[in-house]
Order: sequence, then C-alpha cells, then structure tokens
Amino acid sequence: MATKYSDLELAINTLVTEFHEAADDGPTMNASQFQNMMSKQLPALAQQVETEEGLSQVLDQMGVEAGQSISFENFWSLINKLAVQLFDSTHKKKNISCGCYLM
Amino acid sequence: MATKYSDLELAINTLVTEFHEAADDGPTMNASQFQNMMSKQLPALAQQVETEEGLSQVLDQMGVEAGQSISFENFWSLINKLAVQLFDSTHKKKNISCGCYLM
Repeated sequence: MATKYSDLELAINTLVTEFHEAADDGPTMNASQFQNMMSKQLPALAQQVETEEGLSQVLDQMGVEAGQSISFENFWSLINKLAVQLFDSTHKKKNISCGCYLM
Repeated sequence: MATKYSDLELAINTLVTEFHEAADDGPTMNASQFQNMMSKQLPALAQQVETEEGLSQVLDQMGVEAGQSISFENFWSLINKLAVQLFDSTHKKKNISCGCYLM
C-alpha cells in the first residue's frame, strides 16, 4: 500500500527535490544552475539574478561567498526569507481585514 | 487569468498556510494547537509530542522558551531541521548508488 503523505510533508519534499534537480543531484549548484532554477521556479527573482550585480546581491544575502557554489543551506536561507515575507504579508492582510470588521 | 505558480512557490505557500491554519490565523500557536498540527501533518513526530516530556524536548529544539507560544520562526526551525534531514538522507542515498557504478 502506498504511504499517503500530508501536505506539509509533500511541501518539504518538493523543496528538497527541487534543489536536487537544479543541482543535477550534486551536493551544491553553480551560479548558472541557480539562475536556471530561478527562471523556472521563482520568476519573481529571475530577472534580478540575470545580471552579474543582481546575482551577486542575491547570493550574498544567501551567505554564498564570492566564487563559491551554492549549498542546500544557502538555498534554504532564500526559502526562509521568502517564507517569512509571505507569512508577514498574509498575516498583515488578515490583521487589516480584522480592522475593517471593527469599523 | 489565474496566475500559475511553480512547485517551489506552492510548497512555500503550503508551509505558510499550514501554520496559519494550525494557529487559527493568530500570530502564534499554543502547545495544543501544535500537537494537533503534528498529528495531522507530521505523524512521525505526533507520538513524541503527545507526552509532556517529548513535547518539551521538541519545543526546546525549536527555540520555544518554557510557557511561551510557538511563533512562525520556531515552526520554521522544525521545518528546516526536517528538510536538512531529508536532504542528507536523499543525498547520501544517491552517493551510495554512485558508488555501485564504480564497482
């Protein structure tokens, strides 16, 4: 019988699998693999990482040192940042909505 | 036209949404909401957090101080840990498989 996974388990699995795919099953990915992943998976960031300067900025925020390849830990910093942004924006929206009920 | 999200975007969205649902749209969740979430979403951990001692252990690892409620940041520590475990185990498996080709 196939195991049925929860939405949370599937989401964690997707994040790990997408890294493996982008890194071509290696332990880290290079800048070009990262740019390719962004264009497919995170279109909102794809344009920024197309330029040398934008790419350096994003990699720096992910804790990647100049000339180094991108580890799962680096990748996870980016996912963490995006998740916190989404959490803050969705939570704030809910608060605003609560405010309206008080009027 | 509906926006089509990538698998990565959907996975991040699921993680944030599951927290909102478990926390009943509040900024944090209490221990009982956390236990309920574990039983639905992370059955592998559900049994451990059912006991007072097991729950304390898990919350401690998530950076939750005694008597405090669970923030998104705390929840994210757990997700991070599970993702790294999954990454390590899937990556190691791939290495073993590569080793066999060398024989």
